[in-house]
Amino acid sequence: MSQIISALVDVLIVGAGPAGLTAANCFNGTKLKVLVVDKKDGPEKTGRADGLKSISLEILDTFGIGDTILTDSQRCEEIVLWNPDKNGVIQRTMTIADKVDELMKPREITLDQGRIEAVMGENLQKHGNVETCWNTQPVDVELDPELEDDPDAYPITVNLHNNKTHTRRTICAKYLIGSDGGRSWLRKFFNIKFTGDLTDSTWGVLNMIPRTDFPDIRKVFVVHSTRGTIMGVPREDKLVRFYISMDGGHRNTSLDAKSITSDKIVRAAQDILAPYKLEAGKIPWWSAYCVGQRVADQFSYRNRVFLAGDAVHTHSPKAGQGMNTSIQDGYNIGWKLRYYLENSCNVSLVATYESERRPVAQALINFDKEYLEFFARTDTTHDEFLEAYLAAQKFTTGIGIRYAPSVVVQATARPEDSHAIAAGLAHGMRLPDFQMVNQSDGVPVHIYHRLTQQARFRLLFFPGDIANESTGLRFKTLGSWIAEHKKKVTGIEFITIHSSIRADVELMNLHPVFRPWDDDDGWDYWAVYADDESYHDGHGHAYERCGIDRSTGCMVLLRPDGYVSLICGLDDTNALVTFLDQLNSPSTPTQAHEGKYVVQANGSLKTGPKQVCPQILRDSCSVQTYNAL
Amino acid sequence: MSQIISALVDVLIVGAGPAGLTAANCFNGTKLKVLVVDKKDGPEKTGRADGLKSISLEILDTFGIGDTILTDSQRCEEIVLWNPDKNGVIQRTMTIADKVDELMKPREITLDQGRIEAVMGENLQKHGNVETCWNTQPVDVELDPELEDDPDAYPITVNLHNNKTHTRRTICAKYLIGSDGGRSWLRKFFNIKFTGDLTDSTWGVLNMIPRTDFPDIRKVFVVHSTRGTIMGVPREDKLVRFYISMDGGHRNTSLDAKSITSDKIVRAAQDILAPYKLEAGKIPWWSAYCVGQRVADQFSYRNRVFLAGDAVHTHSPKAGQGMNTSIQDGYNIGWKLRYYLENSCNVSLVATYESERRPVAQALINFDKEYLEFFARTDTTHDEFLEAYLAAQKFTTGIGIRYAPSVVVQATARPEDSHAIAAGLAHGMRLPDFQMVNQSDGVPVHIYHRLTQQARFRLLFFPGDIANESTGLRFKTLGSWIAEHKKKVTGIEFITIHSSIRADVELMNLHPVFRPWDDDDGWDYWAVYADDESYHDGHGHAYERCGIDRSTGCMVLLRPDGYVSLICGLDDTNALVTFLDQLNSPSTPTQAHEGKYVVQANGSLKTGPKQVCPQILRDSCSVQTYNAL
Repeated sequence: MSQIISALVDVLIVGAGPAGLTAANCFNGTKLKVLVVDKKDGPEKTGRADGLKSISLEILDTFGIGDTILTDSQRCEEIVLWNPDKNGVIQRTMTIADKVDELMKPREITLDQGRIEAVMGENLQKHGNVETCWNTQPVDVELDPELEDDPDAYPITVNLHNNKTHTRRTICAKYLIGSDGGRSWLRKFFNIKFTGDLTDSTWGVLNMIPRTDFPDIRKVFVVHSTRGTIMGVPREDKLVRFYISMDGGHRNTSLDAKSITSDKIVRAAQDILAPYKLEAGKIPWWSAYCVGQRVADQFSYRNRVFLAGDAVHTHSPKAGQGMNTSIQDGYNIGWKLRYYLENSCNVSLVATYESERRPVAQALINFDKEYLEFFARTDTTHDEFLEAYLAAQKFTTGIGIRYAPSVVVQATARPEDSHAIAAGLAHGMRLPDFQMVNQSDGVPVHIYHRLTQQARFRLLFFPGDIANESTGLRFKTLGSWIAEHKKKVTGIEFITIHSSIRADVELMNLHPVFRPWDDDDGWDYWAVYADDESYHDGHGHAYERCGIDRSTGCMVLLRPDGYVSLICGLDDTNALVTFLDQLNSPSTPTQAHEGKYVVQANGSLKTGPKQVCPQILRDSCSVQTYNAL
Repeated sequence: MSQIISALVDVLIVGAGPAGLTAANCFNGTKLKVLVVDKKDGPEKTGRADGLKSISLEILDTFGIGDTILTDSQRCEEIVLWNPDKNGVIQRTMTIADKVDELMKPREITLDQGRIEAVMGENLQKHGNVETCWNTQPVDVELDPELEDDPDAYPITVNLHNNKTHTRRTICAKYLIGSDGGRSWLRKFFNIKFTGDLTDSTWGVLNMIPRTDFPDIRKVFVVHSTRGTIMGVPREDKLVRFYISMDGGHRNTSLDAKSITSDKIVRAAQDILAPYKLEAGKIPWWSAYCVGQRVADQFSYRNRVFLAGDAVHTHSPKAGQGMNTSIQDGYNIGWKLRYYLENSCNVSLVATYESERRPVAQALINFDKEYLEFFARTDTTHDEFLEAYLAAQKFTTGIGIRYAPSVVVQATARPEDSHAIAAGLAHGMRLPDFQMVNQSDGVPVHIYHRLTQQARFRLLFFPGDIANESTGLRFKTLGSWIAEHKKKVTGIEFITIHSSIRADVELMNLHPVFRPWDDDDGWDYWAVYADDESYHDGHGHAYERCGIDRSTGCMVLLRPDGYVSLICGLDDTNALVTFLDQLNSPSTPTQAHEGKYVVQANGSLKTGPKQVCPQILRDSCSVQTYNAL
C-alpha cells in the first residue's frame, strides 16, 4: 500500500459498541491519540443487549457515569420461578431475592444498549481527547513486522472507508482494537477461527409494553410450562424484555429463525403464560435467533491487534452476559494499552489481555451450554431447575473471576499466605465493593467511585486502628520508608483506609506521604478514609468485607481495573518492590521474526499467514486458569 | 404601543436564574407555550450562590435532575465551630453532625450556581416545549385591563430588546414571571417598593482552592476569632467557599465594598485563621458586599405579573438561603400557573403565590438580621453562638414552612383533628421524605422521586395492613366509592402506600382504581407501594415518619409541590369532595376595575399608578402566618 497517511493515532478502535466504547473511555483525559470508528451512523437506536451486572456498573462508576446510567435504569430486585402443577397449570413456585451479599448493589439493572452507548459516547465528548467517526469501516490492514518491536513506531496501517461520503483515508496506529461485533470483519481478516456451533433451540426475543394480568410481570420471571419456557426481565419505561422458546421446548433445529415474526413470538408467549392474559402493546424491538456458542481461537494478533466483545465470543443472551463480558473485555485491554503507552513498562502486560479474557469467554460458553440446556428442557424437576438457576446466579455476577498469575497478578507459593492476611481478598480477583468515610469531610463513598479510571495502580493501606499509639507508629514508619524510596513507588496512588473512629484521627498527624502535597492544590483530602459509621448511609464494614484483621492490617496493590495484584503485610515492602520492578522493567521480546506476514484484504478476498499467533502469546495462553466460584 | 405581535405565549419568564429556571421546569411536557428570556448571554459562568438545601433537592428530584446534581456536588456532613481560648488562640470547640432527622438526605450540598443552572437548562431542552432566549430583556410592558379577567386572553404585551442583534420583538402573554434579580427591572417598572436597608457590616466572599494546614478545611467551619469571623463551606472540585468579615467584626459602615480586593479578603482570612497557614491557590470567583436586607412590598401585580427570587428578597448569603428561596418561589408560582392554565380552576389559586411566599421572605429577612448579628459580633459567648447556630440550622432546612389556609390548604377548626390522624403531617406543611418499596417490582423509591412535577394533585392512600381481611375490605369499599364518583376526583393521581408485608399482598387483588388501567400500557405498576423492608436499602418507616396509625390509616391530598392540602380519614370522602369542589370551581373576580392603569417605560423614565395592588390581593395577603419550627 502506498497511500497518504492522514493521521497517526496511538490506538484505533474499530466498533463503537459496549466493548469499543469501554476501551475508549479508558483513555479519557490522556494525551494519547485515540480514534473510534464504526460503520453504523450512530449509537444503537433500540434493542439488543440490556442487562448490566453490578461489576459492570462498577466499571462505569470509575468512568464517572455509573450514577447517570443507574438513574435511568430498572433495578431487578426479585426472581420468580413458575412451574406447572399436577394439572399442567403454571403456578408460582418460588420468589428469590436478586441479591448477592458480596455485592453492595442490586445484582443487575436493565437499560437499552443504545442509552448506555449514548452515555458512554457523551462521556468521550466531555473529555474531548478521543475522536469518534461514524459511517467508517476498515477495508485493509497492514502490519509492518520491521516496526513491530519498536515501542515508538506505528506499525499498523489501516485503510478506512466512509460509507456515506465514499471517501477513504489511511490511519497509522500503534495498536488496533477490534470490537466490531459477532460478524467481525477484523477477525475474519486475520483468519482467526471462531470455534463452536449453533445450538438446536430457536428463541424469540422482544421488548414490549405488555397488557397482562400475569402478576409477576415487573419481576425477573422464568415460567417453565408444558408448552415451553419464557423468561421476562423488567425494563425502563414500562418495557419488559421477553425470551421465548419458539419450538415449544422440543429443540427443533428445523425451525428457521428467519420465518419467525413478532406475532408468532407473542402467540408463543400467550401459550406459555395461559391462563393469564397477555396482549402486546408497543413493541419497539424484536428478534429471533438460534443461539450460536462460539469463542475465537485467538483474542489477539502479534500483540498489536486485540479483539474484544462479540467479535470473540457469542452465546445466549439469557444469562445477561453479552454486554457485560464485552464491557469487561474493553476495560481489560483499555487500561493495559494506556498503561503501557504511558509508562513503557514490561511489554508482556499487553499479552495478558488474551491470557486473562479468553479463559473467561471459554468458561462462559461452557456455562451457557449447561444453562441453555436447562432452559430448553421441559423434563427437569423443580429442584433441578432451581439448583441450576442458583448456580447460574453465582456465575453470572462475575465476582468469581480469578485471573492467573502474570506480570500484573502476583504468584504466591501458597494461597494461604494471602488468605491469612486478607481472607476476603485473593490475588487476581476483583476487590469487593465497600463504603468508606472520607476522613476530611465525612462524606461516605464507595471504593469504585473513588477508583476513577486513570490507568494508575493503587496501593491501598489498611493500617488498622491508627489512633492506637503503636499502630500509629508502625504506620508512620511505613510512611518514612515510602518517603525514602519514592522512586520505587513512583506513579502509584496511595489510598489509606484506617479502622479507627474517624473523630479520633487528625489527617494532619499522618505522615505526609499519605496525604500528598501539591504545589497548586495543597494537601490531598481524598487519600485517607475511615472504615467507620457515616452520618447518613450507615457503616461500610470494609475490613470485615475484605477479611482484614484490624490489629495486623495489610497493603493491597490494586490494578487499574480493581483486580488485586498483590496482598502483603504492612512491613513487607520487599514484596511490593519486587513486584513493581518486574512490572516496570521494559523488556524487549527476544523471539525472531517469522518473516513477512503482511495481511491484506479487498472485499471478500483475504490472504494471510497460517502462523498468526507468535510464540510469546501462545506461551502466556497456556498457563491460565479460570475459577468460577 | 402599536406593534406587530411576534408571538403569543402562555407564560413569559424574565430572568433565567434559579427562580426563573425552576418556574420554567414546572412546564416541562405541557402543551402550554412558555418563553424564558434573560439579558445574560448564557447560564452563570462561575460564582454566586452554591448551597442547595435538602428540600430544594427534592424539587429537583421531581424534575428528574436531582441525582445528576447530587453526583456533581459536595455533601456537607459536619459543622465545626472554632472560638478563641483564654489566650486568644482559636481552638476547635465543637463538631456538629450536619444532619436533621426529619430529612433523609444530607441537609445541604454545594455546587456552583452555573452548574445547577446548566442542568436545569438542559432539562428544558430535553423536554423541548419551553424556549429560552439569551441576550434578551424587556423594555416595555403593557397590561390591558379590559382583558384582565378573561382566562383566554393575552392581556400582557411585552416589548423585548435583543442586546446583541439590537432587534426588538413584541410578545403577548397570559402571565408574566419576573425573576430578574436583585436589581429587577420589572420590580422597578411596576413601582414596587423594595423595603429594607443595607446592614452595617462588610463582607468578602471567595471561592478558592486553599493551601492550608487548617484541619477542618473540608468541613463547614465557623471560626469566630478576636480578629473577626470566617465561615467556610466545602465545595466541588477542591474549592472552598469563604465568607470573611472585612471590618474585623467592628461593623464599620464606612468601609466601602468597592475598595476591597481578593488580596485583602485573603489577608483578612489569614489573620483570622492564624496560627494556621493559609495560601491562596486558584480563585475562580470573589466578591465583596454590604448585606442588603430587603423584601418587596408586593410579589405580584394584578394577579397577572409575579415576581420571584432576588427580585423580591435580598439578604446575607451565609445562611445559604438565596438560591433555595428562589427555587421555592419559582416552584410555587410555576405549578400554580400551570395548574390554573390547564384546569381553569378557581382563580384565587394564583393569588396564593404572594400570600404563601411573601411571609416566607419576610421571616427570612427577620431571621437573617438576627443571624448576621451573631456573625458580626465578637462579644458573644460560645454558648450564645452555638445556640444561635443550632436555631438557625432548624430554620434554614425549610422544613418548618407552613402555608396558611387557602384554596389549596385546608382550614381545620382544630389542628388536633389532623394531628390525631397523622401526627407527623400538618395542613400546609411539606410531606416528609420517606422511602417506600414498589409492590410490583420491589424497587425502593423515595417519595419525591415518585412525585414527578406534572402540576397534578396526588391522593396518597395509607390504608394500613391490607393483608388483614377487614382492613382490606375497608380499602375495597373506598375503591368502590371512587369508581362510582370518578368525576369528583378527576385529574387526581392515586398513590397507595400500605403497611403490609409486601409478599402478603397481590397487586391484582386490589380494587382496579388503585392500579388504573390504560388501554395502551395496561395496568399501572407504579401506583402501589409497601412500607416494608427493601432488599438493598433498608426500611423507609413511612407510617412512622408520617405518624400514621397502621390500624386506622388515612388519606392525604398532596399539592403538586408536595405540601399537604388535606388530611382526612379513609371514610371521610366528604371532606375530600368539598375541598376539590372549591378548588375546581372557576370563579370570576367580582371587584370593579380601578380604571385604566397602563404602565409604560422607556429607558429610565417610568410612570405608573400609585394603586398597583388590587383589593383582592391585599385581602389574601393579610391573613397569612408563617411558622418557623
